[in-house]
Amino acid sequence: MKNIIEFEVGDDIQSFFIIKDLNLKTSSNNKKYFDMTLSDKTGQMNSKVWDIKDEMIDLYKTGAIVKVKGVVTLWQNNKQLKISKIRLKNDADNVDINELVPSAPIEPSLMYKEIFELTDLMENNDVKKLVQYFLTENKEKLMYYPAAKSNHHSIRAGLLYHILRMLKVGKGLVKVYPNIDSDLLYAGIILHDMEKINEMISDEMGIVSSYSFNGQLLGHLIMGIKKVDEAAKKLNVDEEISSLIQHMILSHHYEPEFGSPKKPLIPEGELLHYIDMIDARMYDMDKALSSVDTGEFTDGVYVLDRRRLYKSKFNK
Amino acid sequence: MKNIIEFEVGDDIQSFFIIKDLNLKTSSNNKKYFDMTLSDKTGQMNSKVWDIKDEMIDLYKTGAIVKVKGVVTLWQNNKQLKISKIRLKNDADNVDINELVPSAPIEPSLMYKEIFELTDLMENNDVKKLVQYFLTENKEKLMYYPAAKSNHHSIRAGLLYHILRMLKVGKGLVKVYPNIDSDLLYAGIILHDMEKINEMISDEMGIVSSYSFNGQLLGHLIMGIKKVDEAAKKLNVDEEISSLIQHMILSHHYEPEFGSPKKPLIPEGELLHYIDMIDARMYDMDKALSSVDTGEFTDGVYVLDRRRLYKSKFNK
Amino acid sequence: MKNIIEFEVGDDIQSFFIIKDLNLKTSSNNKKYFDMTLSDKTGQMNSKVWDIKDEMIDLYKTGAIVKVKGVVTLWQNNKQLKISKIRLKNDADNVDINELVPSAPIEPSLMYKEIFELTDLMENNDVKKLVQYFLTENKEKLMYYPAAKSNHHSIRAGLLYHILRMLKVGKGLVKVYPNIDSDLLYAGIILHDMEKINEMISDEMGIVSSYSFNGQLLGHLIMGIKKVDEAAKKLNVDEEISSLIQHMILSHHYEPEFGSPKKPLIPEGELLHYIDMIDARMYDMDKALSSVDTGEFTDGVYVLDRRRLYKSKFNK
Amino acid sequence: MKNIIEFEVGDDIQSFFIIKDLNLKTSSNNKKYFDMTLSDKTGQMNSKVWDIKDEMIDLYKTGAIVKVKGVVTLWQNNKQLKISKIRLKNDADNVDINELVPSAPIEPSLMYKEIFELTDLMENNDVKKLVQYFLTENKEKLMYYPAAKSNHHSIRAGLLYHILRMLKVGKGLVKVYPNIDSDLLYAGIILHDMEKINEMISDEMGIVSSYSFNGQLLGHLIMGIKKVDEAAKKLNVDEEISSLIQHMILSHHYEPEFGSPKKPLIPEGELLHYIDMIDARMYDMDKALSSVDTGEFTDGVYVLDRRRLYKSKFNK
Amino acid sequence: MKNIIEFEVGDDIQSFFIIKDLNLKTSSNNKKYFDMTLSDKTGQMNSKVWDIKDEMIDLYKTGAIVKVKGVVTLWQNNKQLKISKIRLKNDADNVDINELVPSAPIEPSLMYKEIFELTDLMENNDVKKLVQYFLTENKEKLMYYPAAKSNHHSIRAGLLYHILRMLKVGKGLVKVYPNIDSDLLYAGIILHDMEKINEMISDEMGIVSSYSFNGQLLGHLIMGIKKVDEAAKKLNVDEEISSLIQHMILSHHYEPEFGSPKKPLIPEGELLHYIDMIDARMYDMDKALSSVDTGEFTDGVYVLDRRRLYKSKFNK
Amino acid sequence: MKNIIEFEVGDDIQSFFIIKDLNLKTSSNNKKYFDMTLSDKTGQMNSKVWDIKDEMIDLYKTGAIVKVKGVVTLWQNNKQLKISKIRLKNDADNVDINELVPSAPIEPSLMYKEIFELTDLMENNDVKKLVQYFLTENKEKLMYYPAAKSNHHSIRAGLLYHILRMLKVGKGLVKVYPNIDSDLLYAGIILHDMEKINEMISDEMGIVSSYSFNGQLLGHLIMGIKKVDEAAKKLNVDEEISSLIQHMILSHHYEPEFGSPKKPLIPEGELLHYIDMIDARMYDMDKALSSVDTGEFTDGVYVLDRRRLYKSKFNK
Repeated sequence: MKNIIEFEVGDDIQSFFIIKDLNLKTSSNNKKYFDMTLSDKTGQMNSKVWDIKDEMIDLYKTGAIVKVKGVVTLWQNNKQLKISKIRLKNDADNVDINELVPSAPIEPSLMYKEIFELTDLMENNDVKKLVQYFLTENKEKLMYYPAAKSNHHSIRAGLLYHILRMLKVGKGLVKVYPNIDSDLLYAGIILHDMEKINEMISDEMGIVSSYSFNGQLLGHLIMGIKKVDEAAKKLNVDEEISSLIQHMILSHHYEPEFGSPKKPLIPEGELLHYIDMIDARMYDMDKALSSVDTGEFTDGVYVLDRRRLYKSKFNK
Repeated sequence: MKNIIEFEVGDDIQSFFIIKDLNLKTSSNNKKYFDMTLSDKTGQMNSKVWDIKDEMIDLYKTGAIVKVKGVVTLWQNNKQLKISKIRLKNDADNVDINELVPSAPIEPSLMYKEIFELTDLMENNDVKKLVQYFLTENKEKLMYYPAAKSNHHSIRAGLLYHILRMLKVGKGLVKVYPNIDSDLLYAGIILHDMEKINEMISDEMGIVSSYSFNGQLLGHLIMGIKKVDEAAKKLNVDEEISSLIQHMILSHHYEPEFGSPKKPLIPEGELLHYIDMIDARMYDMDKALSSVDTGEFTDGVYVLDRRRLYKSKFNK
Repeated sequence: MKNIIEFEVGDDIQSFFIIKDLNLKTSSNNKKYFDMTLSDKTGQMNSKVWDIKDEMIDLYKTGAIVKVKGVVTLWQNNKQLKISKIRLKNDADNVDINELVPSAPIEPSLMYKEIFELTDLMENNDVKKLVQYFLTENKEKLMYYPAAKSNHHSIRAGLLYHILRMLKVGKGLVKVYPNIDSDLLYAGIILHDMEKINEMISDEMGIVSSYSFNGQLLGHLIMGIKKVDEAAKKLNVDEEISSLIQHMILSHHYEPEFGSPKKPLIPEGELLHYIDMIDARMYDMDKALSSVDTGEFTDGVYVLDRRRLYKSKFNK
Repeated sequence: MKNIIEFEVGDDIQSFFIIKDLNLKTSSNNKKYFDMTLSDKTGQMNSKVWDIKDEMIDLYKTGAIVKVKGVVTLWQNNKQLKISKIRLKNDADNVDINELVPSAPIEPSLMYKEIFELTDLMENNDVKKLVQYFLTENKEKLMYYPAAKSNHHSIRAGLLYHILRMLKVGKGLVKVYPNIDSDLLYAGIILHDMEKINEMISDEMGIVSSYSFNGQLLGHLIMGIKKVDEAAKKLNVDEEISSLIQHMILSHHYEPEFGSPKKPLIPEGELLHYIDMIDARMYDMDKALSSVDTGEFTDGVYVLDRRRLYKSKFNK
Repeated sequence: MKNIIEFEVGDDIQSFFIIKDLNLKTSSNNKKYFDMTLSDKTGQMNSKVWDIKDEMIDLYKTGAIVKVKGVVTLWQNNKQLKISKIRLKNDADNVDINELVPSAPIEPSLMYKEIFELTDLMENNDVKKLVQYFLTENKEKLMYYPAAKSNHHSIRAGLLYHILRMLKVGKGLVKVYPNIDSDLLYAGIILHDMEKINEMISDEMGIVSSYSFNGQLLGHLIMGIKKVDEAAKKLNVDEEISSLIQHMILSHHYEPEFGSPKKPLIPEGELLHYIDMIDARMYDMDKALSSVDTGEFTDGVYVLDRRRLYKSKFNK
Repeated sequence: MKNIIEFEVGDDIQSFFIIKDLNLKTSSNNKKYFDMTLSDKTGQMNSKVWDIKDEMIDLYKTGAIVKVKGVVTLWQNNKQLKISKIRLKNDADNVDINELVPSAPIEPSLMYKEIFELTDLMENNDVKKLVQYFLTENKEKLMYYPAAKSNHHSIRAGLLYHILRMLKVGKGLVKVYPNIDSDLLYAGIILHDMEKINEMISDEMGIVSSYSFNGQLLGHLIMGIKKVDEAAKKLNVDEEISSLIQHMILSHHYEPEFGSPKKPLIPEGELLHYIDMIDARMYDMDKALSSVDTGEFTDGVYVLDRRRLYKSKFNK
């Protein structure tokens, strides 16, 4: 079955999509129609449902998953899906959500397990119980929360994927720099963005609709500090440990203009920042380069200061 | 009795001072002596105590108040106090601390009373109990804490004085801008710097020796947010109110490079920032201008971007 | 009678509007028509006048006030006023200009009177005569000049309103900071933006069409200094006073990148800057918040660094 | 006769110097002596006059020219002039001031003449009379005013020298860019720094002691604009011409942080800025490179962003 | 024969143009047509060729020169060229390329000759042979390469024109500053942008389509240094000379953020930068001012920080 | 045998040191003496050699290794080594240089071997031969060159140590990010700072005295690019590979103000930058923290933006 990115004019389509955007409009002959954007994991396409009946109007909303039947047409040189049948997904449909939204390449429960097992190896009990407390508390949301609304790792379970890759980088670094305390570093990695779960409002498909009230007033760094403070008191965590982890959360954006009022004062905080940068940049670069052939330059990538990346022909 | 600023060569002095700095040294004839800096509220002077006995060495420390007898001499074109007698202050001495350190011009307990009475007039009970909780908790320290280590209001009870003047400015502003909620604004004013009390370590003379552990790792903005969060939960304060006050604390430095990761999103926060700026600047300017005559320029003032202020001859 | 903001499809309209924008176009059947934007104090709406006769073409121009009769229609999902009758306003119409353009909430002559009376209380005669000279010279234009082309106080008589509110703030501040010379501060407030009257070209409705030649080459700060210099010489004002007021005008934007080559060197200049900021920000915030309900965030406000303001539900 | 830069230990000296700095001190045997810095055009040297009599004390002041007799000694590895005889210069001495202070390499009156003759060739009478007015008014001070207190052209008659070299550069440029109006450009060059004459207070040796009152409150750009405005009105100069020249003065520092609130809006203003930069930089570089041999680097030059310049061995 | 800028509705046109942009589209009645942008040296115009035959489709491409016959029509208030006949230019047409693209105002071969002759006068043989090597190697491309893709001197042979004008400015400067080595300065001028020839890919009409691989990875400064290094070794040029010229190329953009990691350490490099700035700015200003009348302001000019330039009425 | 850091007053010392600084001075009784700074790997100390004979003067120079005999005394509260015997080191002395200067903690030849062996595993022959060419060419200097004059890795063989640790980090990263080409990344790591060998002038103890001519005019990034370009041509390396490695060298400082005119356009370049940062920061932090006890803050560390680092008590 074709994905949106492969649709060609004339194709008959029968498939599931997410409604990304929906407007009720009135045609020149005064009939109501839906002007929608439908999406799957590969892209999105404008679609029209003509001759809407009144009982349909309240049924379909942005975010809903629908099954549609239609044909791909051309309108003003753009492809458009002209829909003849539409209905909401029901439980019997057994839709694989990974077909509908871009998702982390590893099954969330496996990522969660790998991360949790790594915390089991922690030597310091205070760090271990604090980190496991948060992993347990937020387990359900971690299964689908992205790491951002529209930047790096803005995919389903992207936050978990971001944490997992950072932990792998961290494991490599502690071998090179023996003075680094691995418990502290890993705790920083696992908790640094944890409050994105309450800063952003995401549905179970990992699509962020907006920021929360406290997300806008305080942001995930400050919210994270408060949560760690509370949990540490509840769990009787050593005060220095609690403060150091709060400090790592506070300083991981590094520069004031990116939201960190303090720079890292411990080496683990310094590393946390660079590991975060590396993982975000590798994600953004991989994504941008995936759309060009070897030997070509991408267009200017907004999140990379409009750099035009090069995909090398080089082959070892 | 003369203050340090008035000492002249040849004066016989018998008075109380604070030891600002003390070094034990050895003279060329191998005798031990104290090389000290003594201070009162008007300034400081180098002083020497010759022929130190061993039992004296551990007695005198930086920060101690001492009674000394001596004579003002000239050494390398600088005045110096040559001390013949020295002893520690005892309880019978009944020393007025305001003679020894620069202090706010109003009695701390009066300032405290004026502030507290203003909170009694607050209409919103949640705001009132939250603010009064902090005023009560910190009452003792507010009697002497300065507002800074070396910048504006770095005087005894300077924090209270700063709050009081800001409240007076705030009262003027709410008359001009009726949409401003005065309870919220006054709460922001009273709490914005409250955690300086735990960020800095001050003795009862209002002299700050250093910053605390959490002061360095988190800073008074973040510490303040945590304290308000905790207190608000304990006192069952409405969540929106608690968040707004935390947001005001977080944003009152306004610019990221001055420590605020968020800019104010409510008008009361915007005003809080400007009232803070005005009161700090008026303090710094008054202080700088107090040392020159009318019609003259000061030297470049460090905290005012090295500006050379002018004291106008103008007289209405 | 409805204002534009309240128009609904199907409404019959008979009212006065300002022509904000007018284009003569040719329809597909080769007939001429007006494509106009009409405005009142609440907003603006696209409008069409079909079948234009040649003698009408030169009659209607941007800025004119017209009486129209028409009906509100829907075109491409936007409301449009289809006009059947149009004529220019005449003297008999007795139109209230405050219904047509957004204006300061206080009658200009009352604001002027309040400001002038405050100058009567000045103790220094030189300051008084200088300030009253400018108030008198510019009286006519002050009745309608806005304080900006499109930013804060860009409303009819907005400059006068800006001055008046700043004076009220100033009166509150001089009570808290007794070293401030109120005559100097008030003079700075009244004169700081006075040359906006010659920097911008505004019609009597307070709508700015463009900047003047000298406005573009020198700007209102430099123009203001020159005017004060001239007037002070003519009125035999004390030279120090004249220089201090010129310095306050020069430095009131504070930062070089906002047009001030010098920062304030006197406390009155420092206060002038902050009072100016406060009044502008309160205006911009009130305006932005007026369009959302309590408990909501505004869209990003351009002049406030794209901040999304919050309108609190808080009610004391 | 040797200059200071050539003095060697043991030399007997009898010559004229300027007192750059003078302190009255008391020796260990309680006798008064002068601790002075003496200078000539090549440098400066610490000097001592022992056994001062009381009547001498008020006779010698910073800035005075003195004739001294003495011997060069070594004290703490530094050369020092030990003075046995000292007296003030008198009119009979016929001292050449160019031997005492660094001066422009061309006789001031010749520079003045060359500049004035160039203005005689101006085609536009308004520009000509305005420029000649200022040259005539300031003729006396131009004979010795430097262009700065301590930066480029801070030498006797340095302002005139700066103007002259800039005019020569300007003459080269108008040949390459025919759209440039040479009258306007030359006027900008001659007047751009003219008010340095009133911004700084210089003695006749071209040594600046301080900045004037208006110099500090307004600066030479604003002062220059006011003077041109006044003079242009007095001389009935065309208003556009007057505004353009004021604009050139206002914008010639180019960047806001260097004091120009406006950037040039006419090509002549753009050129004025670059000519000013070129002449200042060539002066600073020549000066820095004069102290090293070919093939060597200078120390970091403060006014050139601490660059270490290279003096090339290259010889065409 | 009219140029595009002069076309009026109804004009019959028969002329040569360049195809700046070409799209094959399908009309509502399902016929193919060309939607093109045609240009000559004065501007560009939308054009349509209806009823395209299949054999035409591959014939016409962006960049081609075509002869067309057509009529100027009005469509949606914009002029459009409706083409009845079109064919590719052939050799017999004898088209003057200067009519089709904006070009330097002097014949390239004359500019080249003038530059080359100036190098013949160089006294240092190493400099001379190095510079002449590059002029000879790049002669063919210099006849048409612009100095930029879309900024200053982005015209046919613009690079040569830029070099020539800079040399003329340089000749004026070496007269004023005798310490400047003219050979070195001229070499810097001739070589500073030479590798734009390999950084950008231009056709013979001076239109740049894109940047080269190395242009994007290294840029013309680094590419220039490598080329000079290679050539100098090949020609046995003195090492200091080679390094100094490389340094001038490296530092001529002056600020790191404009691509120069080093600032000039020799006066010739300092001058090179300012001469480059002057010539670029004079070009941009002339161009912007050419489109307005005297006494008017231009729109904000993007490359000049959005300044609105003024064209003075001033006439000497 | 004690190191300098352990010396106490009264100790008799007989050991080898490096002369870091040497001045010939004359005492008050007109005798010549050496005022020296001696150093070993742990620190440095002021030292005096009295009664210098003339034949000694030219024998001892900065950088020489000497054997001295003396006693530790106290002078003005500072320790000083009073030397009774001094002679130059001779070959028989068999001095271990690692005792005299701070050195990398691994034997240079072992580090070199480990790095070279890693290049043997490279799959791409062009990359391998290019990298091995530079390792072979520079082998001798790599044995002692530091990576900086005074910043991170400014120790003997610090450059090699820096490369080795970065390679280890790189090996960890290529496991996490499979799209990264390890050959390219390792080549970038090995070559990124290679030309520091010609940018700085270091003796065999790894002490840098100054920067080279080309080091100052071009810097090690540009010098490195030229060397790679030359070597690649000589070794017939694929052009894309050569350009990519040059681009990685050019962009590894990342920000223009730190010397990189281009930002990385390939992921391997992006990683190179972050690996470089991590290794430098870990070095600087380890060094700063080594001087304080756990639970303490360091003084402000200059190269870390004056941050006061914290050494945690935390112990897993």
